[in-house]
Amino acid sequence: DIAISGVAKAGLIYNSEGEESTRVHNEVLLTFDGTGETDGGLQFGFNTNIIIEDNGGVANDDTTVFLSGAFGKLSFGSVAEADEVAGLSDIGWEGLDVDDVAEALVGDELEDILDVDLSHNVNYTYATGALTFSLSGQLASGGHGADNVDSYAAGIKYSFSDAYVGLGYADHGVGIASADVVSVFAGGTFSGVKVAALYSDASLKDGLGGKADAKAYGLNASYTMDALTLSLGLGKADYDGVTDHTSVGIGAAYDLGGGASVHAGLAQVKSPGDENLEAFPDGAKALADDKEVRADFGVTFTF
Amino acid sequence: DIAISGVAKAGLIYNSEGEESTRVHNEVLLTFDGTGETDGGLQFGFNTNIIIEDNGGVANDDTTVFLSGAFGKLSFGSVAEADEVAGLSDIGWEGLDVDDVAEALVGDELEDILDVDLSHNVNYTYATGALTFSLSGQLASGGHGADNVDSYAAGIKYSFSDAYVGLGYADHGVGIASADVVSVFAGGTFSGVKVAALYSDASLKDGLGGKADAKAYGLNASYTMDALTLSLGLGKADYDGVTDHTSVGIGAAYDLGGGASVHAGLAQVKSPGDENLEAFPDGAKALADDKEVRADFGVTFTF
Amino acid sequence: DIAISGVAKAGLIYNSEGEESTRVHNEVLLTFDGTGETDGGLQFGFNTNIIIEDNGGVANDDTTVFLSGAFGKLSFGSVAEADEVAGLSDIGWEGLDVDDVAEALVGDELEDILDVDLSHNVNYTYATGALTFSLSGQLASGGHGADNVDSYAAGIKYSFSDAYVGLGYADHGVGIASADVVSVFAGGTFSGVKVAALYSDASLKDGLGGKADAKAYGLNASYTMDALTLSLGLGKADYDGVTDHTSVGIGAAYDLGGGASVHAGLAQVKSPGDENLEAFPDGAKALADDKEVRADFGVTFTF
Repeated sequence: DIAISGVAKAGLIYNSEGEESTRVHNEVLLTFDGTGETDGGLQFGFNTNIIIEDNGGVANDDTTVFLSGAFGKLSFGSVAEADEVAGLSDIGWEGLDVDDVAEALVGDELEDILDVDLSHNVNYTYATGALTFSLSGQLASGGHGADNVDSYAAGIKYSFSDAYVGLGYADHGVGIASADVVSVFAGGTFSGVKVAALYSDASLKDGLGGKADAKAYGLNASYTMDALTLSLGLGKADYDGVTDHTSVGIGAAYDLGGGASVHAGLAQVKSPGDENLEAFPDGAKALADDKEVRADFGVTFTF
Repeated sequence: DIAISGVAKAGLIYNSEGEESTRVHNEVLLTFDGTGETDGGLQFGFNTNIIIEDNGGVANDDTTVFLSGAFGKLSFGSVAEADEVAGLSDIGWEGLDVDDVAEALVGDELEDILDVDLSHNVNYTYATGALTFSLSGQLASGGHGADNVDSYAAGIKYSFSDAYVGLGYADHGVGIASADVVSVFAGGTFSGVKVAALYSDASLKDGLGGKADAKAYGLNASYTMDALTLSLGLGKADYDGVTDHTSVGIGAAYDLGGGASVHAGLAQVKSPGDENLEAFPDGAKALADDKEVRADFGVTFTF
Repeated sequence: DIAISGVAKAGLIYNSEGEESTRVHNEVLLTFDGTGETDGGLQFGFNTNIIIEDNGGVANDDTTVFLSGAFGKLSFGSVAEADEVAGLSDIGWEGLDVDDVAEALVGDELEDILDVDLSHNVNYTYATGALTFSLSGQLASGGHGADNVDSYAAGIKYSFSDAYVGLGYADHGVGIASADVVSVFAGGTFSGVKVAALYSDASLKDGLGGKADAKAYGLNASYTMDALTLSLGLGKADYDGVTDHTSVGIGAAYDLGGGASVHAGLAQVKSPGDENLEAFPDGAKALADDKEVRADFGVTFTF
């Protein structure tokens, strides 16, 4: 069976350092979900997202194929990196990338620094009771061709009542350079406040004896009163004393019913935008010190 | 809710000046319409058209997101330019661009002459009784980046019994050059004949003291007898005495029932095809004098 | 009416000569089928396939528009070449191109040798009782522009009980060069074994007096026992004594029920992969002698 759903958005995006500080944005996302079951009781399916932004081209916004059963769940395509056990939500409408500062070392985010595609394309996840265990990697494929990248990750998550803790580990090799990342995650809902936090530590080696260390951490908290949800995001990344990145943002969302909602966010982010961040640690390029004020406001419709 | 509909076409296109004078053409258009309503009674939705022509690539053929209520209707994406109050229908099956000569100054059509994208991406329309009022503009967006274009338009339409009259105004600024366009529209159904006409006058300035004036006008008339519809299109554009463009075309459509129809058209068009027209007024490039005989014939299936 | 169906795949592909000998592969194929009927009883429709491979871009994987009635069936777009009366099935999961060696001269496959697009875009098929007759050609279109290719084909197929025989003829002109291809097809199901075979003979002329001859032939046999299907493919192409291409492959498929199946294939193919084959007959470039071991294994889900 194939189910179709969709999301449409329209609104405004502000960035104090943008070429045009304010711009309108709209997008339509069509989601196709295929689901089935074998005679032996295995579940299988796919998830494909087709997006059109600002009346532009037709693009793939993540496609996965999966097979699951008693053995766990095996996913192919745009899969989660296993070490990103519980990422933080972003702040705002279209997203101000407040979470990116805290998440700069986990999942495939180091690709901004290492300047190669670190996204994984195979994920295996096994859940038993309160424990969830995941492995993922970037295997050679048509989308991840013959290159010098070896990237693997593992993660474990323990859930209890309304909370969880998690641990992630990733090992990236890019030619002779490498990076090891350890990350810790915790979150839950306490007295109506939903909190998620992460701490991560990366050890980077350039393969010639050069070493660097980086730490990134942050949290997201949100509180919902009837139709209104308020949220706060904080992030910090410390690149071995060379440079600091920081983010702080607040957001609000109001549910209009029927699948529609209004969202707004305001944030101050000191680097990195992809446009600002440069390679680290092979050079001192992470010094980019661009403090941006970001805001967005818009409607989100779900179908 | 998301509804899917579609159009498929197959047929022949002739152009006396084409590299291959006759060619086959086929296309499939998939339309996704999302609709919803908030608890407060606002309507929202999106319209996305995905097209594949001649078994080629997958392309976006106009996508919009909208929100409407007592305040009017706000649209984002591939919106109508407000000054094009009531465009003319084209002649033929796939369309011979007979209407383009008459419409050369309204909506975003001046982009052929000014050589920049003049399409608008935000439209606000308010209707009250017989009056419809629209404003539109090209705002900075991912699809209309940091450039030197300022383009806005307004339109008003008054409908009565089976007829309407309308007035449009557009103001385009491209760097130091600018263009003001005033247009008048009228149409209706009289004794079974459906008629639409427009007259437009553009005042172009190159910002260095150079001025030019252009007028474009035309009409479309059609008459339906049972399954058969006959149509006539006429257009003329007078570029300040420098050059004239003219178009005349006749068409026929026959409804086969079940969503299928056969269409044919024959026209003589003296410029402009995009391939022929060149910049105006900054130069005498609008002189291209290419008189083309155009025809097409094909089937259109709707689903 | 528009119906949506889909196929998703995930698995491994091996090629002994590949840059990466083993790689993972996944894909999602969305199929949109439009069908309708005119008041006069003509059937019409379209078939569009949108594919996303390895989480890459959104691509068209064949789109056709058709109209059929007592007069036969007329198709536009990605149509079958009429001389390829009954192609062979491939071996394996994603396909090891075992059939390509035997089919190297029929349909549009000579394009690998002639280095131009020979695919047809219009097909007319008429069936009466046991006889099916087809004509097809490459007509000028937006997808097959002004070029020096003239390509036409005809085919006839006679079916009786569980078997068929067929005859195909194709005439390709590429500038002053040309190729004539005669092909014979036969197949059927005998004692539970499904067999398909073809033999083809091509006469190539470079327009300057140079001539060459090529023969290609092969077969595919498969046997199904409950959920398991075993298959065998053989192919040979003899390019005028200059070079030989050969292929042999075995495959297995197991039906898991619910639309899911597992497939595996193993083959040895001596050229041509597109990457290996080079132009013939204008030179001795068909000599590429690359013997590859190919294998694949994966799951196929249908929705």
